[in-house]
Amino acid sequence: MIPNQPFRPAPASARDKLLEAGVKLIRQQGFAGTSVDQLCSEAGVTKGAFFHHFASKEALGVALADYWSSSTGAFFAAAPYHHHADPAQRVLGYIDLRTELIGGPAESFCCVAGTMVQEAFLSSDLIRTACNSSILGNAAALEDDLAAAIEQSGARGVTAASLARHIQAVIQGAFVLAKAQGDVGAAAAAREHLLHLRRYFEMLLQPRIEETAS
Amino acid sequence: MIPNQPFRPAPASARDKLLEAGVKLIRQQGFAGTSVDQLCSEAGVTKGAFFHHFASKEALGVALADYWSSSTGAFFAAAPYHHHADPAQRVLGYIDLRTELIGGPAESFCCVAGTMVQEAFLSSDLIRTACNSSILGNAAALEDDLAAAIEQSGARGVTAASLARHIQAVIQGAFVLAKAQGDVGAAAAAREHLLHLRRYFEMLLQPRIEETAS
Repeated sequence: MIPNQPFRPAPASARDKLLEAGVKLIRQQGFAGTSVDQLCSEAGVTKGAFFHHFASKEALGVALADYWSSSTGAFFAAAPYHHHADPAQRVLGYIDLRTELIGGPAESFCCVAGTMVQEAFLSSDLIRTACNSSILGNAAALEDDLAAAIEQSGARGVTAASLARHIQAVIQGAFVLAKAQGDVGAAAAAREHLLHLRRYFEMLLQPRIEETAS
Repeated sequence: MIPNQPFRPAPASARDKLLEAGVKLIRQQGFAGTSVDQLCSEAGVTKGAFFHHFASKEALGVALADYWSSSTGAFFAAAPYHHHADPAQRVLGYIDLRTELIGGPAESFCCVAGTMVQEAFLSSDLIRTACNSSILGNAAALEDDLAAAIEQSGARGVTAASLARHIQAVIQGAFVLAKAQGDVGAAAAAREHLLHLRRYFEMLLQPRIEETAS
């Protein structure tokens, strides 16, 4: 897996060009810092085209979270980690894939939804809800594997839903520390947290020998 | 410990009033979304006073990261978890304190530095560096306890510095998911990640029985 490969085909329609411009600019400078003029200029479309497709910048933000979810969701749904027979290995395979996808500067691997919601959670309930759905949708896709891994291991005191959310929380936090680190060390600054997450899950989801022996 | 108690005395000078306005507004709406006019209005000072103390909004952002670090740093330095005899318990005590401090809506407990750097990391290297120092300064304060806990437990493959950074990454990620969750469930949405972090550290830092017995 090569990091930073776009999951999406090159945009053809004006709408998709604007959404791709949103991915790029919001990763670089956030939602409030990105203007409709900048989005149009980056997309190479007119302001008339923008307002043909989106009633407002907020409407683009909502559509962008959905666009982000559906493209990343389809990518992960098709990834080979699903072929592991062991559910714990499927979960670790997802974490490994997320780790492999981190490379280059932070703006090339950070999360559009996590960046938007960090600043827009109070100013736009529509954007907050769309970003929450995006992040929790990624989490929900792992719940069945986590439930099977918990049952197999006998891990106590944890739920599949909470562990699934924790994967997303660690990824979001890793991206914040990567941005703080700056260009050169950004990828390494993010990856170390996915390795800690992996170690936690390995310890938690290994079969309990004292119980399986009884 | 009551959540959301300000760590800082009520601001007396115009400079401190502007910094407290920055804490409040940037937690609510981010850095790019906050104008100098809003900062002045929130602080109850004139624009002349603003530019007497800060050359630019960027200069306020840098000063704010430092103000945030020094006030939170002093609070944690004085906290009772330092009195545990066991270094692993000191580390867990810090995590417990961070967990207890989470309550109410996300804007009352989220991190000013993490919010600023999420959007300003590319547009202002000065703000990025100040936020990185703020986050890593909190991390560095835990390194000695973590080093002692690693040595005591025999945990392998981890360093004190990396575990210290991981605490901060999980906290930052918890705040992003809390913001996405929205008002009602925000605190619970953040706390669950600190509980996962605690479980990871408990498993990692417990003495290895098979080795201490040999």
